[in-house]
Amino acid sequence: MSEEKFASESKCVKTEIVLPGDTNPLGNLFGGRLMEWIDIAGSIAAQRHCGRVVVTAAINHISFSVPIKENSIVTLEAQVSRAFETSMEVIVDVYVENTVTGKRTKCNEAIATYVAIDQNGTPLPVPKVIPQTELEKARYDAALRRRQLSLILSGRLKPDDATELKSLFIK
Amino acid sequence: MSEEKFASESKCVKTEIVLPGDTNPLGNLFGGRLMEWIDIAGSIAAQRHCGRVVVTAAINHISFSVPIKENSIVTLEAQVSRAFETSMEVIVDVYVENTVTGKRTKCNEAIATYVAIDQNGTPLPVPKVIPQTELEKARYDAALRRRQLSLILSGRLKPDDATELKSLFIK
Amino acid sequence: MSEEKFASESKCVKTEIVLPGDTNPLGNLFGGRLMEWIDIAGSIAAQRHCGRVVVTAAINHISFSVPIKENSIVTLEAQVSRAFETSMEVIVDVYVENTVTGKRTKCNEAIATYVAIDQNGTPLPVPKVIPQTELEKARYDAALRRRQLSLILSGRLKPDDATELKSLFIK
Amino acid sequence: MSEEKFASESKCVKTEIVLPGDTNPLGNLFGGRLMEWIDIAGSIAAQRHCGRVVVTAAINHISFSVPIKENSIVTLEAQVSRAFETSMEVIVDVYVENTVTGKRTKCNEAIATYVAIDQNGTPLPVPKVIPQTELEKARYDAALRRRQLSLILSGRLKPDDATELKSLFIK
Amino acid sequence: MSEEKFASESKCVKTEIVLPGDTNPLGNLFGGRLMEWIDIAGSIAAQRHCGRVVVTAAINHISFSVPIKENSIVTLEAQVSRAFETSMEVIVDVYVENTVTGKRTKCNEAIATYVAIDQNGTPLPVPKVIPQTELEKARYDAALRRRQLSLILSGRLKPDDATELKSLFIK
Amino acid sequence: MSEEKFASESKCVKTEIVLPGDTNPLGNLFGGRLMEWIDIAGSIAAQRHCGRVVVTAAINHISFSVPIKENSIVTLEAQVSRAFETSMEVIVDVYVENTVTGKRTKCNEAIATYVAIDQNGTPLPVPKVIPQTELEKARYDAALRRRQLSLILSGRLKPDDATELKSLFIK
Repeated sequence: MSEEKFASESKCVKTEIVLPGDTNPLGNLFGGRLMEWIDIAGSIAAQRHCGRVVVTAAINHISFSVPIKENSIVTLEAQVSRAFETSMEVIVDVYVENTVTGKRTKCNEAIATYVAIDQNGTPLPVPKVIPQTELEKARYDAALRRRQLSLILSGRLKPDDATELKSLFIK
Repeated sequence: MSEEKFASESKCVKTEIVLPGDTNPLGNLFGGRLMEWIDIAGSIAAQRHCGRVVVTAAINHISFSVPIKENSIVTLEAQVSRAFETSMEVIVDVYVENTVTGKRTKCNEAIATYVAIDQNGTPLPVPKVIPQTELEKARYDAALRRRQLSLILSGRLKPDDATELKSLFIK
Repeated sequence: MSEEKFASESKCVKTEIVLPGDTNPLGNLFGGRLMEWIDIAGSIAAQRHCGRVVVTAAINHISFSVPIKENSIVTLEAQVSRAFETSMEVIVDVYVENTVTGKRTKCNEAIATYVAIDQNGTPLPVPKVIPQTELEKARYDAALRRRQLSLILSGRLKPDDATELKSLFIK
Repeated sequence: MSEEKFASESKCVKTEIVLPGDTNPLGNLFGGRLMEWIDIAGSIAAQRHCGRVVVTAAINHISFSVPIKENSIVTLEAQVSRAFETSMEVIVDVYVENTVTGKRTKCNEAIATYVAIDQNGTPLPVPKVIPQTELEKARYDAALRRRQLSLILSGRLKPDDATELKSLFIK
Repeated sequence: MSEEKFASESKCVKTEIVLPGDTNPLGNLFGGRLMEWIDIAGSIAAQRHCGRVVVTAAINHISFSVPIKENSIVTLEAQVSRAFETSMEVIVDVYVENTVTGKRTKCNEAIATYVAIDQNGTPLPVPKVIPQTELEKARYDAALRRRQLSLILSGRLKPDDATELKSLFIK
Repeated sequence: MSEEKFASESKCVKTEIVLPGDTNPLGNLFGGRLMEWIDIAGSIAAQRHCGRVVVTAAINHISFSVPIKENSIVTLEAQVSRAFETSMEVIVDVYVENTVTGKRTKCNEAIATYVAIDQNGTPLPVPKVIPQTELEKARYDAALRRRQLSLILSGRLKPDDATELKSLFIK
């Protein structure tokens, strides 16, 4: 599959209300539930990008900066940041909005990797991503560094070959 | 509260994947689960319009035209169509998308009514709705006929006073 | 299928307790959960009437008159009100009971339509309904008006042909 | 509380459909889900008998004679069989019905004990039970033997004092 | 299958936190949810003992001695106590732990019976159990008395033949 | 809090069966559900280490190497690998076992960070971790590199100060 797609074409918006059944004993959104929502939003974005069934290959990072209170309106926005051979990095931004003013505050950021597969579970090539906005471009660039780091940590890349990442440490 | 708001300001998008735990024994999305998603999307739209806590006053209609298969990506788009004293009519459009082509097909339409309340459960006035697109205007007009019909059926309005609705039958 | 059945033969009773996981942030039964229960009770009644697999064709109306508090005992009573060619209208009455006195209060009424289908999803004819009590007869009559109205609103019936409904407006 | 109540006054009917999300990997109703439904039905019957908040004191027995297939209509019928000082034995009969013929088959029987409590969790006296039908009388009698057995097994009653039960072994 | 296995080889540990969605209206762990966890832990222990698919044959007893509060850490420990022809008795001990001291308190004990089956649902012979600790031996012995009692109550064994059980009443 | 604790004292074991309601449309364990289980096991381990209420601060990494099939027995083993001022890194190993042979295969590894808090949500100091086994020591050392990396990526540490991590790139 040689085609290319704009990053924004994969965008998935998922809005939720935090019901009592979604909370932890502190009365905030239970982390496990948020992770479930993130995985659904992320896999929809990946599926929209490649037009194939996808499976979760890794959760690369999820930050939990502020607790999300019961009854909050939570918006998850997932978008493919960069595609590699058969995998796609997806970034999911999580926002909470103030009901009265409508102002949104970002409270989580998740980075996940999905792989496109065929009926037998064999990975399939996916379209390249074309970033357009400043944010999309910055995330596109950072995705390569994250991938190199991930390959180093799993022993599949030698640190010396991680040129992008190495430049962080050696100027 | 005398302010007015554009219909589109209340828009809520909620995207889901139909997992096995969401299906009925025919392998399609279970109606009760779809209704749950509709109520969440609808109440978020109403809450965004009025900036208040809202409660569901009525489900006026939900059509189920085509079954939604397991593994489908389902998008719910909810928007306030018209506001009355303390109540808001919300229309929720439900789409299924073809994974390969990305083409969306509408498969359900739901109409619900929400009421804004204060801490004691007393209804509160809500902002008026300003429709902009052709669709928003058509739905804004139809909302009045639906309301008159609802008031007639519940015995709170005399058929003779339902001028909008009556014109359907007497030309 | 030419047989006829009494309306009461389809009756389905479903009793629930409102647990914390069923509530909204106001501490009352979450509307989406109630709708899920209504759809289960309604489809059982329809299935009992026709002895076939059924699918939800429409939710025609659900009223939410009083909030149902956490820990309430909720009883749903569903019964087929009238059958048409391949569809059945089901009315679901929802009651809450006072634990100490046992007195029941009606708090919701839902009207839904189900269609009997075969293995290929093709609609099948269903038995006629014989109403017996005064309430069953009143609901049987009203079901025709609701059906005419529904057909008019969806453009499948001309207002002039909706004789039952028209009589509401023209005496 | 010195009053007495008929066993049938506590009757609770709870009807369910076995959805895919309720099944085990064999495609039958998952035992844990059935137990959840049994506990809800049983506690409603106990609460109806005593007009108080109740807590589960023990599950005395649940038999699983035949597997319940996905898509089955399951009816649980719970009724208080006998009351002791502050506790009530409830029997829950579980039936599956043949969709075409409507014929019901009993597939589970559960026996549970509930205790009425006040706000501090202190047990409260409950009304006596008056059995009327043959089945109610047989269950009322057997409840005493079960209670004696339970007290023996937990070391709170000497076998010699369990006159009802002893007669099973010594004629 | 003639092999034997140590009781401890079947041990299954399942740890949970009581989230708000797991509670009853008193703010304690809902009995139905605990029963669901017990059935999962019990069937894993049985499956580990026999290396086969198992189905729940009976819940013989579950005691609820102390309520388990929201936010508690709950540990379920399930282990096969004795095997008969094709069935296994499993005992599940439920503990709550004090977060600060780490001290565990036993709050429930459940006894359940599972049967190993093949693809057609036919019961299969299971390995014998070898008890090692004092507790395992005591439970192994008691399992026989419980089985005899169960067979008597269901009419499949004459009281006179229940030698183990009879000795409780006649010295 | 100046005390120290062995890493193994925090160990939490959580065993699950993959039921149909836990699967994705490929018939494998749904990623979001696994993440929910991981967060529960991880937070229990952290809570056992510090004896305090904890909140999830970050999911640092979750790998999904092999799909987990429906009906699998899944064991999660969570243990604190290292503690910093107020935070704890927890590693959760996820295993699937072959029912017949009992042999376990590791299929996921998750790394998460939890923070101990008081009633006002203020972070509290936690005990140090004493690693004992080779694996515990290796994970203890790696935890520091991961923390430095995390601080660099979030801009809170200069690459030059990340001595542990830098040595990966510059020999």
